[in-house]
Amino acid sequence: MDRDDEPEELGAEACLRLLSTVPVGRVVYTEHALPAVLPVAFEVAPDGRLLLAVRRGSATARRLDGTVVAFQADRLDPDTRSGWSVLVHGRADILRDPEQILRALRSGLRSWVGEPDPVFVALAPELISGRRISAAGRPVRHS
Amino acid sequence: MDRDDEPEELGAEACLRLLSTVPVGRVVYTEHALPAVLPVAFEVAPDGRLLLAVRRGSATARRLDGTVVAFQADRLDPDTRSGWSVLVHGRADILRDPEQILRALRSGLRSWVGEPDPVFVALAPELISGRRISAAGRPVRHS
Repeated sequence: MDRDDEPEELGAEACLRLLSTVPVGRVVYTEHALPAVLPVAFEVAPDGRLLLAVRRGSATARRLDGTVVAFQADRLDPDTRSGWSVLVHGRADILRDPEQILRALRSGLRSWVGEPDPVFVALAPELISGRRISAAGRPVRHS
Repeated sequence: MDRDDEPEELGAEACLRLLSTVPVGRVVYTEHALPAVLPVAFEVAPDGRLLLAVRRGSATARRLDGTVVAFQADRLDPDTRSGWSVLVHGRADILRDPEQILRALRSGLRSWVGEPDPVFVALAPELISGRRISAAGRPVRHS
């Protein structure tokens, strides 16, 4: 069956490229044995790691440190019903190297609330998957 | 310490009200022992359950059926650095009652790609948490 609305799977490079176009994603980790999902500002570092900027004073960075987490970002347009979603799995570690911290600060990366001195958490992607979702080409029979 | 950028915790009612203002959220479930995150169109049903519209022909509905899942939605404005995020945990079940399916179809709920005949998955919230995140009132010292 020919279905135009089948999601198009994306390769890792395309996923990283798309990730670098949005300022915020969602980190998924375990809290009290349940999945927690937290929006965080991030950027794709030159080495391919994701740098998450977490509010200093929150417990989030400590919870993420040294654990395997999932990270998701998307851009979805409700008007055209098109968009993409990318999912990354990998190990998260608080950034401790002063040079790397300085570089992240210089790049302008800040936590969502814009505080001048966030904690950076580096996520090294081990699995990257993504899909482009589009209703294009498919007749939408309801209004 | 007085911090204007502390997230404001939201009550369950406020969370459901906010959820009803956005067309899409993200369901978090387990796939191959890893957390999977999938954007889905949804609505808050009159009985307080979340109805997710999943593409027929995908394996998602089957994977969600009868399991405890997390569901997250947010609205975040990168310009003002403000917004909210809501997280729901609960049991998901494929909607099988013809009357309830008809009601969901009549309400206009469709899967993200707009197909006329989606599978509906009902999520009964057991835990609802949310936060309003805002940089308002806090001087942003970087440009």
